[in-house]
Amino acid sequence: MPLGVFDSGLGGLTVVRALRAALPYEEIVYLGDTARVPYGTKGPATVTRYALTCANHLVARGVKAIVIACNTVSAVAPERLRVELDLPVLGVIEPGARAAADATRVFKVGVLATAGTIASGAYPRALSACSTRIETYGQAAPLLVPLAEEGWTDGDVPRLAARRYLEPLARAGVDVIVLGCTHYPLLFAVIEEEARALLGPQVQIIDSAKAVAREVAAFLENRALLRDSSLGEGSVKLLVTDLPKSFDETASRFLGSEIGGAEQVDL
Amino acid sequence: MPLGVFDSGLGGLTVVRALRAALPYEEIVYLGDTARVPYGTKGPATVTRYALTCANHLVARGVKAIVIACNTVSAVAPERLRVELDLPVLGVIEPGARAAADATRVFKVGVLATAGTIASGAYPRALSACSTRIETYGQAAPLLVPLAEEGWTDGDVPRLAARRYLEPLARAGVDVIVLGCTHYPLLFAVIEEEARALLGPQVQIIDSAKAVAREVAAFLENRALLRDSSLGEGSVKLLVTDLPKSFDETASRFLGSEIGGAEQVDL
Repeated sequence: MPLGVFDSGLGGLTVVRALRAALPYEEIVYLGDTARVPYGTKGPATVTRYALTCANHLVARGVKAIVIACNTVSAVAPERLRVELDLPVLGVIEPGARAAADATRVFKVGVLATAGTIASGAYPRALSACSTRIETYGQAAPLLVPLAEEGWTDGDVPRLAARRYLEPLARAGVDVIVLGCTHYPLLFAVIEEEARALLGPQVQIIDSAKAVAREVAAFLENRALLRDSSLGEGSVKLLVTDLPKSFDETASRFLGSEIGGAEQVDL
Repeated sequence: MPLGVFDSGLGGLTVVRALRAALPYEEIVYLGDTARVPYGTKGPATVTRYALTCANHLVARGVKAIVIACNTVSAVAPERLRVELDLPVLGVIEPGARAAADATRVFKVGVLATAGTIASGAYPRALSACSTRIETYGQAAPLLVPLAEEGWTDGDVPRLAARRYLEPLARAGVDVIVLGCTHYPLLFAVIEEEARALLGPQVQIIDSAKAVAREVAAFLENRALLRDSSLGEGSVKLLVTDLPKSFDETASRFLGSEIGGAEQVDL
């Protein structure tokens, strides 16, 4: 049985990339809700409704577990998904928060995320659960999603946008910054460079995709749900709700390798 | 009976602003599909499906005519809306194209618009219908929508983004640029300044909202559909599909005046 992964659009492919590195034998079905992207600027009720539609589609395709590869959905909808669906549902926020809590020395963590994720308060909650000493500073950075989707990942525009979003975190004195949106790893180099210039060379940037992949691997192993390695390397099936052709073109940027043949589904 | 106006989100309010200036006695019902914004990055079938849902909601509220205050919808769906709905449907593309055709001296017109509008070829078609001598140069400028919605309408980031999108139009030697997306008038000052720097002081920027308002006024008058001025100044009713509160906060930027009380509707 495959692993189901969904996101509002392309961003979740950075999680697929990390999952493939950690779990090369797993079959993965990825659903990108490109007809309704982005989720990050929308309200919790709307995001929850869309997330249920996506998750139910994956359940109908017989997945063994669902990874929510979207911070906005992970912030507002995981409990509802767990109640409605009769299978394991893993989000991206707790693994990223745990990695940040392990990394901080000054107990001040910055979070860059969409407006929806910041408004939800999910990161402060998850970080407080790791250590009550940690102070969390959230910064909505909505422009980083269209920059990543547009492919403007270096040059002056993303640099100046990143700087503007990082300045409040620099003033707060954080030493760790969580990329709280699955699109942001595409801008990792620019964000890291600007963060080092503003906050000093010791600043750590957490890409939660890798933390998620580690936790998913441990979860599948504990539940004896891993696919048998004797079956050979797993494949990735891409589903989208709109524009499969342009999805193929940009998916390789996110996935770090060429995987064509995205199929359009109607939710 | 009110005039119905709809858009994917906030951008169409620049059209409402122009309509109110031209038609102060009209009642206006505005529907912003904020749960599915933006349309500009989506495919024609998806945009048409969303547009029909919006238009049918306005019809159910008893509007006398519908203004599509969205270039992406005006590019792909007006014929379908005219077939399905039994009332007048006016788009934003033809009025803007006519204003540009009147203004150009070198018969080269640039269009800044969303990826969906550019891909549709609607502007080259509309401009060729005005004069077969006109060459149209389209430039997708997807980042300008989130910049306008984020309120980053001056400073380095919008300036550099505008410059990057204007450079190909400068190389083509256009003397008129149509703002082919109802969000872009919020960035008018930055776009005009960069365009003058790149293309020379004679360049003209066409805000199609004003052209649309003139044509809607003429249309209503010809059909004897104007509201009686003795009834006093008309009001604007705002409907959205998500986040009415944050819509109120940003709507005033687009509308140029305070109009609160956006109501959420479920489509």
